[in-house]
Amino acid sequence: MAEIIPIHQHKEDFNDCIKNLSELCKEDLTSINTLILEKLDSSVPLIQEIGKYLILSGGKRLRPLLTASCFHILNNNSIGKLSHIGLAAAVEFIHAATLLHDDVVDLSKDRRGNLTANEVWGNKTSVLVGDFLFSRSFQLMTKYGTIETLKILSDTSVVISEGEVLEISNDKNLEMNEDTYFQVINGKTASLFSAACQVGGLSGGAKENQHKALKSFGTNFGMAFQLIDDALDYSSNLKKMGKNIGDDFKEGKITLPIILSYGRSNNKEKDFLQKVIEKPDSNENNFILIKELLTKYNCIEDTLTRANHFAEVAIDSLSIFPDNEYKKALIKLIKTSIKRLN
Amino acid sequence: MAEIIPIHQHKEDFNDCIKNLSELCKEDLTSINTLILEKLDSSVPLIQEIGKYLILSGGKRLRPLLTASCFHILNNNSIGKLSHIGLAAAVEFIHAATLLHDDVVDLSKDRRGNLTANEVWGNKTSVLVGDFLFSRSFQLMTKYGTIETLKILSDTSVVISEGEVLEISNDKNLEMNEDTYFQVINGKTASLFSAACQVGGLSGGAKENQHKALKSFGTNFGMAFQLIDDALDYSSNLKKMGKNIGDDFKEGKITLPIILSYGRSNNKEKDFLQKVIEKPDSNENNFILIKELLTKYNCIEDTLTRANHFAEVAIDSLSIFPDNEYKKALIKLIKTSIKRLN
Repeated sequence: MAEIIPIHQHKEDFNDCIKNLSELCKEDLTSINTLILEKLDSSVPLIQEIGKYLILSGGKRLRPLLTASCFHILNNNSIGKLSHIGLAAAVEFIHAATLLHDDVVDLSKDRRGNLTANEVWGNKTSVLVGDFLFSRSFQLMTKYGTIETLKILSDTSVVISEGEVLEISNDKNLEMNEDTYFQVINGKTASLFSAACQVGGLSGGAKENQHKALKSFGTNFGMAFQLIDDALDYSSNLKKMGKNIGDDFKEGKITLPIILSYGRSNNKEKDFLQKVIEKPDSNENNFILIKELLTKYNCIEDTLTRANHFAEVAIDSLSIFPDNEYKKALIKLIKTSIKRLN
Repeated sequence: MAEIIPIHQHKEDFNDCIKNLSELCKEDLTSINTLILEKLDSSVPLIQEIGKYLILSGGKRLRPLLTASCFHILNNNSIGKLSHIGLAAAVEFIHAATLLHDDVVDLSKDRRGNLTANEVWGNKTSVLVGDFLFSRSFQLMTKYGTIETLKILSDTSVVISEGEVLEISNDKNLEMNEDTYFQVINGKTASLFSAACQVGGLSGGAKENQHKALKSFGTNFGMAFQLIDDALDYSSNLKKMGKNIGDDFKEGKITLPIILSYGRSNNKEKDFLQKVIEKPDSNENNFILIKELLTKYNCIEDTLTRANHFAEVAIDSLSIFPDNEYKKALIKLIKTSIKRLN
């Protein structure tokens, strides 16, 4: 069984861990970035411009890193094969496409401290360039995939979009239950984490039990990661991970801390939550009151407990792999991703 | 060489021809519709609702009909194979996804006399359900396609989105040249017509020269079809094909008739065109003045001449196939599609 992960602040740990993993997968990352750049090429200049703005603006490349490390965790020595590189690029294109469309849907203005593409080029262009990136990802999978990896990635795209529609169907629905919410974040985050891990492993020749382990690892890591993100939105430190604290709050988004607090609130508090979520604003006083409610009912702690559950399942799922540096780095990645919350 | 297609009105001919083709491909259409319905199934009710609204609202199923007839034109006797059915459904899902996103981008309110999905459910939902339909199409191709048909369909998706971005990059650009415009409508219409024909033929065992012929047939038919659509928008009869006359005009869209008229106009007329396209409105007087310009410079006639060129290439490309009822029906389809313009 995995160790219990203590709740205390480990500033920078997660970023250090990403750096470490990037160093381990340095050659793969170089190849993946080259392929991404090559595939952003288009006869239509605007596509190149937005694609580069979005994909080359210094993201962590978390998903391609998962693909590369799940390829190498198998102690794979195959040289000169590009399949995991091509599929990692495909995964990053899917991710970029969903970011573009999410920002349109959420009317977001800021991502990682930069203006969003929809702010710079408008919603229409973001919708269409998102479609381009989506199409490019399918072109990449068709070229580098097998029947098995193609099925995984096309199924994942369906799960992602179903999750997004499920989320918008439950807009402002404070009575959304936890299982529905888990289905939303599985679509939003966990399914692509899982696909990234699976295609890496399968490109490296993973056997059935190894494939299943990587699938479980990616899904559970993704669930934990998203839950911590949700909790971070109500964290008290200003500006962390390049995200303004309270974005979800300002958009009236329903996330686990809010679902838990609504369920545990008395009628007066429920009315207050309804009012604030129904007509979200940037009123700092309301934000403070919501945070008081979250504290009163232990909602952040319990979100962390849920995240820990998923993180532990993810860590345990790696037990069947040999103890190499990739496995160690992945385990450290999960542990520090949980510790982003102080 | 194909016969010269005379310019005169053949009311209802095109719809009759669609009916005839639908009758010939009746069994295939039934199977395709069944599969579409099956694949609109989702655990998220909103997806089913919008999908059915969009796909089952009585469209002509022109693209699936192309797939089915290009399968049968080969005098194919293979029974029990579902590949052309699955790929026809995939093509229709791509088409539906692009309609959803187009209506968001164009802020359209009306399609075939019904409210657009974005009018009923909002832009956000349309973007996300469009992504779902896109993903579903890739799932279908992955299941029913071969390496060759997968490549055709994923390449086509890229061409479609590049065409859309190219169009929006040239928004209000009256100096767009004709070749750029052809690239736009190749993306918008001809590429998917072509893919529909190719995957039908390849599923039926088309040899290389037959594949090339069907590719050319679809592309050129699509180009002709779109050009006639563009001309119809400035046609004088009210309500035709369920489309309000002057939609392109109202949206300030640049189409071939406008490109031709701008190039041929004197400076005063150019200023007028600039003004009207820059700030489009529903001013009937401006619409009449534009139509006078189009008449003065033969722009509708010349658009029809261009359409005729593509239609003739399309018809000639079918010459390598045996004279069966499918070939006859396809040729009639093109001829009557041109004759939609009186």
